[in-house]
Amino acid sequence: MQLYYHDKLFDGTHKDKTNATSAATANPTKLAPGSQFGMLVVFNDPITRDDKYHSPHIANAQGFYFYDRKDTYSAWFAFTLVFNSSEHRGTSNIMGADLMPEKTRDLSVVGGTGDFFMARGIASLQTDTFQGQYYFRLKMDIKLYERC
Amino acid sequence: MQLYYHDKLFDGTHKDKTNATSAATANPTKLAPGSQFGMLVVFNDPITRDDKYHSPHIANAQGFYFYDRKDTYSAWFAFTLVFNSSEHRGTSNIMGADLMPEKTRDLSVVGGTGDFFMARGIASLQTDTFQGQYYFRLKMDIKLYERC
Amino acid sequence: MQLYYHDKLFDGTHKDKTNATSAATANPTKLAPGSQFGMLVVFNDPITRDDKYHSPHIANAQGFYFYDRKDTYSAWFAFTLVFNSSEHRGTSNIMGADLMPEKTRDLSVVGGTGDFFMARGIASLQTDTFQGQYYFRLKMDIKLYERC
Repeated sequence: MQLYYHDKLFDGTHKDKTNATSAATANPTKLAPGSQFGMLVVFNDPITRDDKYHSPHIANAQGFYFYDRKDTYSAWFAFTLVFNSSEHRGTSNIMGADLMPEKTRDLSVVGGTGDFFMARGIASLQTDTFQGQYYFRLKMDIKLYERC
Repeated sequence: MQLYYHDKLFDGTHKDKTNATSAATANPTKLAPGSQFGMLVVFNDPITRDDKYHSPHIANAQGFYFYDRKDTYSAWFAFTLVFNSSEHRGTSNIMGADLMPEKTRDLSVVGGTGDFFMARGIASLQTDTFQGQYYFRLKMDIKLYERC
Repeated sequence: MQLYYHDKLFDGTHKDKTNATSAATANPTKLAPGSQFGMLVVFNDPITRDDKYHSPHIANAQGFYFYDRKDTYSAWFAFTLVFNSSEHRGTSNIMGADLMPEKTRDLSVVGGTGDFFMARGIASLQTDTFQGQYYFRLKMDIKLYERC
């Protein structure tokens, strides 16, 4: 299942309140502010089938990420894909390191509910694009290997 | 296994320090303060067999939740049920979205230790009651489907 | 697989920026500052085969922990072991309560990628040493029980 994940980080301005789908709830620490070490972002981000932000949202990703490297950008994610469409209903729970310097990064699908009842697998992420500090898009390939 | 989870959020007053079992470690962001988007709460909450706060604590839930929707309350949880009674010893690790607008919300039990060694399953939550901003109680139904 | 995990928490001084591998991104709450309730630490900590900090790093642990008890120290962890050596490549995703008053604490290995593809198991932690507020070392014994 190939998906696109769009993160529009709140830039703090009044007019961005409508569009933004994520916000930093803890600021970068003083350890390594250049790579935003420690910055913690809570999100409720739209998921689309193709790479268009304005395509129908087939799911939402609800969760958080934070940056955790001193010398370069790298992040750690935990989130739930919440499907609520005619095609799928249910959730898929995902966690792992988003090792941003690598082209493809594998996270673990650790459980699911509804149509994804108990399903485990791998979520492979690629950075599809980013625009400045406040928007990035990931290509996410979900492979489920096991159900019971 | 049916349990009740009690969250008594610290209201900031000196006299609440004895009773409170959770506290906000990050405040709501400016993105959507009305639904407390981004507020992050760390908890060590008591678990009881029935819905009485003063019943024996058969376990504790240690973990965190945060609010992650702009238009209404909705949360995301990760926590460990820590059992330490004559009946059960061990832990059960749980994560997932608490989609508060829905009557019943399913989270994933992703692993366990001790009596719950390697057990996976589903934790179904229902809001049993809430009192203002500082207390809520969840009915939690744990179903374990797999051990090894 | 026996490993050692080293956490060198940033003490806030300029000269510690080189050595520190973790930093508090949220401070302890006022609920119980004595046991650092609510303090949230993001880390990218080295993993060694033996207990020497300057031994080769066979992996990194990227993730977070926070303190969550009022009366004593106790913590909750979620992290990814990132292996990138001649011996192992891949990740192992771990979460659970670090019940610090107990000698041995078991967390869940909930998934993995690469050499640890889909592997689940138990990560047993022991405090090996600590030095003041800014360094501790855990002995970590990883047992994987299941692959597919």
